[in-house]
Amino acid sequence: MLKYLREDIKKLKAYKVNKIDYQIKLDANEGIAWLNGYNRYPDDSCSELREKLAKNLGMKREEILMGNGSSELIELVMKAYLEAEELVISISPTFSMYKIFTIIHKGNYEEYPLKDMTSLDVEGFIEFVQSKKPKIVILSNPNNPTGTLIPKEDIIKIAQACDCMIVLDEAYVEFAEEETLEEVRQYKNLIVLRTFSKALGLAGIRLGYMIADAEIIDYINRVRSPYNVNSLTQATGLRALENEEELTGNVRLIKEERERVRTRLEEMGYIPLPSQGNFLFFKGEEGLYTALVEKKVLIRAYGGDLKGYYRLTIGTSEENDIALATMEEVRNETGKDK
Amino acid sequence: MLKYLREDIKKLKAYKVNKIDYQIKLDANEGIAWLNGYNRYPDDSCSELREKLAKNLGMKREEILMGNGSSELIELVMKAYLEAEELVISISPTFSMYKIFTIIHKGNYEEYPLKDMTSLDVEGFIEFVQSKKPKIVILSNPNNPTGTLIPKEDIIKIAQACDCMIVLDEAYVEFAEEETLEEVRQYKNLIVLRTFSKALGLAGIRLGYMIADAEIIDYINRVRSPYNVNSLTQATGLRALENEEELTGNVRLIKEERERVRTRLEEMGYIPLPSQGNFLFFKGEEGLYTALVEKKVLIRAYGGDLKGYYRLTIGTSEENDIALATMEEVRNETGKDK
Repeated sequence: MLKYLREDIKKLKAYKVNKIDYQIKLDANEGIAWLNGYNRYPDDSCSELREKLAKNLGMKREEILMGNGSSELIELVMKAYLEAEELVISISPTFSMYKIFTIIHKGNYEEYPLKDMTSLDVEGFIEFVQSKKPKIVILSNPNNPTGTLIPKEDIIKIAQACDCMIVLDEAYVEFAEEETLEEVRQYKNLIVLRTFSKALGLAGIRLGYMIADAEIIDYINRVRSPYNVNSLTQATGLRALENEEELTGNVRLIKEERERVRTRLEEMGYIPLPSQGNFLFFKGEEGLYTALVEKKVLIRAYGGDLKGYYRLTIGTSEENDIALATMEEVRNETGKDK
Repeated sequence: MLKYLREDIKKLKAYKVNKIDYQIKLDANEGIAWLNGYNRYPDDSCSELREKLAKNLGMKREEILMGNGSSELIELVMKAYLEAEELVISISPTFSMYKIFTIIHKGNYEEYPLKDMTSLDVEGFIEFVQSKKPKIVILSNPNNPTGTLIPKEDIIKIAQACDCMIVLDEAYVEFAEEETLEEVRQYKNLIVLRTFSKALGLAGIRLGYMIADAEIIDYINRVRSPYNVNSLTQATGLRALENEEELTGNVRLIKEERERVRTRLEEMGYIPLPSQGNFLFFKGEEGLYTALVEKKVLIRAYGGDLKGYYRLTIGTSEENDIALATMEEVRNETGKDK
């Protein structure tokens, strides 16, 4: 979609790193080897990772780009497409960094509220987008923190009706009931982001990937910093892809646990929103966060418009049990149990 | 230097990650542990690395910020300070990414040529900067690819005379005869960038750091992506700081080798520029790069205005010897030996 690309980026050439077979490599001002060959710059194109992911997804390597977490990939889309003062639209509530990234990249940001924090009125949203004329729409799907999944057919409606780039941030897609990749691939204005931080259990290595039309990947590559994904992360990411069975098992466990924890929370009188992520979002009593911190249990508390809301990540059965028991303890102590 | 900060960033709050002691951590939607605790997000503040560096440099932790290579740190400065259409100035020739980063961050870019590629006319440069009124001046010092060192007293003149942010990219400073840190720290508009990629021999892990006034670090933190430096890189960076003796030895070796290689190149009829980096820059015959590639020796060749110039990284004695012998071979084969 050249049409949406920033004017300055149309003329920009990507920093090129040649891959040439060598005996002696004195072309990149690298230092002397002392630890596992880490004196060499990483593979700039992350070819092994992209090759393996492409195979898993039934796509071409040219349709995949690796990033230093999805965060970097969101920023790359903005760097490539967002001119100063142009608009980015998302839903609300959602991941707070979308707004911050937009400001950093000199754009304006607006949100369209979910209905009861549980569903998107897709017709209303499309109308909103068409009237506001953003350059980028970004949707966390399933949505963080509410857990809402915008269904496939609505994503397709949005991609068809909106004259802009659409970013689907699918950080939690592995925990959802449906995934949209096959259907949305045909929409050339659509970029899908995925991550190793959630289902693959590797938040510490900072690795995400972008799936999009090869032409889009080529544009985004122009604004990507050379060697953006370090060698350690590339190697560890490959280990995850070779360990799919265990990780699929973990996802299955989390989905089961999510519904078990939901029932327990409901028994305690909370009303968690329907969630397709590895977390539950609910309204709770004031002071819950602090009381839990005192007992060394961390959940996420929100402020601002979401004051009084909490998000509980689904962990292992043991972790969930301790968290739930501690919440019950807190209830009993504050005399707020039902 | 609040005065130079982008208007939108003045109002922006940094994404905050709380560090709280815990038994159960279900606050960040992390996945289930399966590999070395990498399911946890990295330490967002890189506290151990900053602590250790601060100690080594005789500074405060609040005056140091870690980045995903110096590349990220250059971009962070631009994100924080550069409004659309504002100017970034550097010298020429220099590291090509300065221009590309400026374009990506919606700025304009101009260069002031070095005298004979070997020194900076500091009075002329200051006049240029004062007439052009840039928001940011960025200087690679020692300069890549020429090896030029702008002396300490000239850096101070520039910092005093220029009404803008000054970024000193000191990627190669460990190979230079003097370093400016102590003197330049008092200039509040000055940001120093350093890297683990060169003297510390860890280009593969992508780790750089910024040294600046604590107020500047606070501003830059607002535009930094959460968890920008992954856990693997943080741990490996710490290993380098614990291994200083070996690495100091490597730097000493490279400086000796640089002068030995220079002599050999001069004997072959090349005229390498004086260099304070871990590389030598010289004019060579057409086809040198390709002839060396055929013999599996990689050096850096330039195009555009620098067509015919080459940059040879200084490696170990063995690497340098093979590279030099291969260059002699090429000379003999093409009949261009003197």
